[in-house]
Amino acid sequence: MKVVAVLYPDDHPDRHPDVVASAARGLDLGDRLVQAGHELVSTDATGDELDALLTDAEVLITTPFWPVYLGRDRIEAARELKLVITAGVGSDHVDADAATERGITVAEVTGSNVVSVAEHNVLQILALVRNFVPAHRQVGEGRWDVAEVAQEAHDLEGKTVGMIGLGAIGARTALRLKPFDVTTLYHARHRRSPAEEATLGVRYARLDDLIAGSDVICAALPLMSGSTALFDADRLAAMRPGSWLVNTARGAIADAGAVREACASGRLGGYAGDTWYPQPAPADHPWRDMPRQAMTIHYSGMTVEAQRRIADGVAEILDAHLDGAPVPEDYVVAAPEG
Amino acid sequence: MKVVAVLYPDDHPDRHPDVVASAARGLDLGDRLVQAGHELVSTDATGDELDALLTDAEVLITTPFWPVYLGRDRIEAARELKLVITAGVGSDHVDADAATERGITVAEVTGSNVVSVAEHNVLQILALVRNFVPAHRQVGEGRWDVAEVAQEAHDLEGKTVGMIGLGAIGARTALRLKPFDVTTLYHARHRRSPAEEATLGVRYARLDDLIAGSDVICAALPLMSGSTALFDADRLAAMRPGSWLVNTARGAIADAGAVREACASGRLGGYAGDTWYPQPAPADHPWRDMPRQAMTIHYSGMTVEAQRRIADGVAEILDAHLDGAPVPEDYVVAAPEG
Repeated sequence: MKVVAVLYPDDHPDRHPDVVASAARGLDLGDRLVQAGHELVSTDATGDELDALLTDAEVLITTPFWPVYLGRDRIEAARELKLVITAGVGSDHVDADAATERGITVAEVTGSNVVSVAEHNVLQILALVRNFVPAHRQVGEGRWDVAEVAQEAHDLEGKTVGMIGLGAIGARTALRLKPFDVTTLYHARHRRSPAEEATLGVRYARLDDLIAGSDVICAALPLMSGSTALFDADRLAAMRPGSWLVNTARGAIADAGAVREACASGRLGGYAGDTWYPQPAPADHPWRDMPRQAMTIHYSGMTVEAQRRIADGVAEILDAHLDGAPVPEDYVVAAPEG
Repeated sequence: MKVVAVLYPDDHPDRHPDVVASAARGLDLGDRLVQAGHELVSTDATGDELDALLTDAEVLITTPFWPVYLGRDRIEAARELKLVITAGVGSDHVDADAATERGITVAEVTGSNVVSVAEHNVLQILALVRNFVPAHRQVGEGRWDVAEVAQEAHDLEGKTVGMIGLGAIGARTALRLKPFDVTTLYHARHRRSPAEEATLGVRYARLDDLIAGSDVICAALPLMSGSTALFDADRLAAMRPGSWLVNTARGAIADAGAVREACASGRLGGYAGDTWYPQPAPADHPWRDMPRQAMTIHYSGMTVEAQRRIADGVAEILDAHLDGAPVPEDYVVAAPEG
């Protein structure tokens, strides 16, 4: 059996002993696969070279951090493919309908890095609201202009935070924000019970009410047809003047040009997040030199601890597959019928 | 009566309508003082020019963000001085013994920005532990090296945080950290009750045990003889290898050279905080170009909301003084006997 893993490159794996989710390390799966008589190809190739590798691969491992965009054409060309594993959470880079029609199971390591992303949400909310990046920049520039920084620095206390999506990441984010004495609204497909709402300190709101009534909005929902370009020019214009937007969900949830414009004009107080479209973000992506941003490259779910959990989860899924057993149910994103 | 306010400069007050705590705006105290027949001199002078102003001043207003170092000589030269007000929290820049001996009351706006600093503690802890600054830097550099950032990125979850000091700022910090599923140790002069410890999610530890047993240490104690250079080379060496230190309390609590060395060698995972010694930090301060730092200039207690609370509190203290009433007790740092 041939397993292909497409992971982000690491030019200095010797310097990065804890980075197991790179192409150089291949999630440390090589030995176990080879010992079982299988083959692992771990690569950072996402173009033609990958297509060649996929012609006889049975399993494909990908990550959201260095995604393979796996559309219908590619899936139909990969004639031996039976299992696609996302080493992380969020499999929007895979056309799940095309996959299941071809008998391919799509799995991800559910829960492996949700706490990591929730922490990143709180960090980036605080960074924007408190105006961290300009205040840090003055350190390196040898400056000390308190007034310039203070004019845009606010306490989170007393603000209204709007969570769009209240799943594993959104709920963990809300719970961490609760002792900041904020009002937290949420919008999600399903309402939580009153007891859960009280525990998380959240109140349900319709989407339009959340957009118009929040000082900070945090996107914590998957990318799907209903959330693509959710933050377009109209919706950004419906947000409170000077409010902040954090999107660690998926870059394509926001319209890149409209966000840039809203930050440049000051209509938006700032934008943060660590997801981009496409990824890796090109050097001339409009968010790279955008003012009022506290963005990072996509790594929030790639902490040392998350990598370990992801590697363990991928190994568990692979082991099931090698044993001819079904993928553990909680890891399945989409499976062929029957 | 002459009131002198020494506040940070603002070269563009027209661009900063919400910055009231600058020399240009003078905490918006001018009108009320002039209408009552008094004089306000609002300045950013801290040297000889200030000494000249102080010869006939009755009230001096200062801030920790742009401090006047008010030692015995200066106090003795200011023969009319009766009241020194810190527009903020932390009056270590004033020699309180020398002041009270001369019949001068020292006051600060207790509580005015404690929540602001607590939020900054959480922000800077997350920034260090999650390796935010290098991940943000890659955005501007046009890079996408996930492995380089991931090697030093950790979840806060499961870590041990050591709070040194558990007063108004420390307790608010601990409470905000509680839902991150950390173990929080604290060291303080007085132990909290079991009920308070449970509410804040903290456990008492001796100082040495806290230093040796924490992954993240957060200084939240005043500057005093016992805390000056608390983090010297020896104590930094007693910390866990790769652990992180956040100090929003006062710069002089840490030995600048020793911290720089520990960050450069990687012995310390990183250093953050927004207090420096002296302030404003010179352009060649050893922390300005230190690696592994997520520092800011001193502004954490200068959010727009904190400035409003500070301005209101200073006005309240001044009003009492003008009425010949004592300064409200909760604002008094040190008062002459009798």
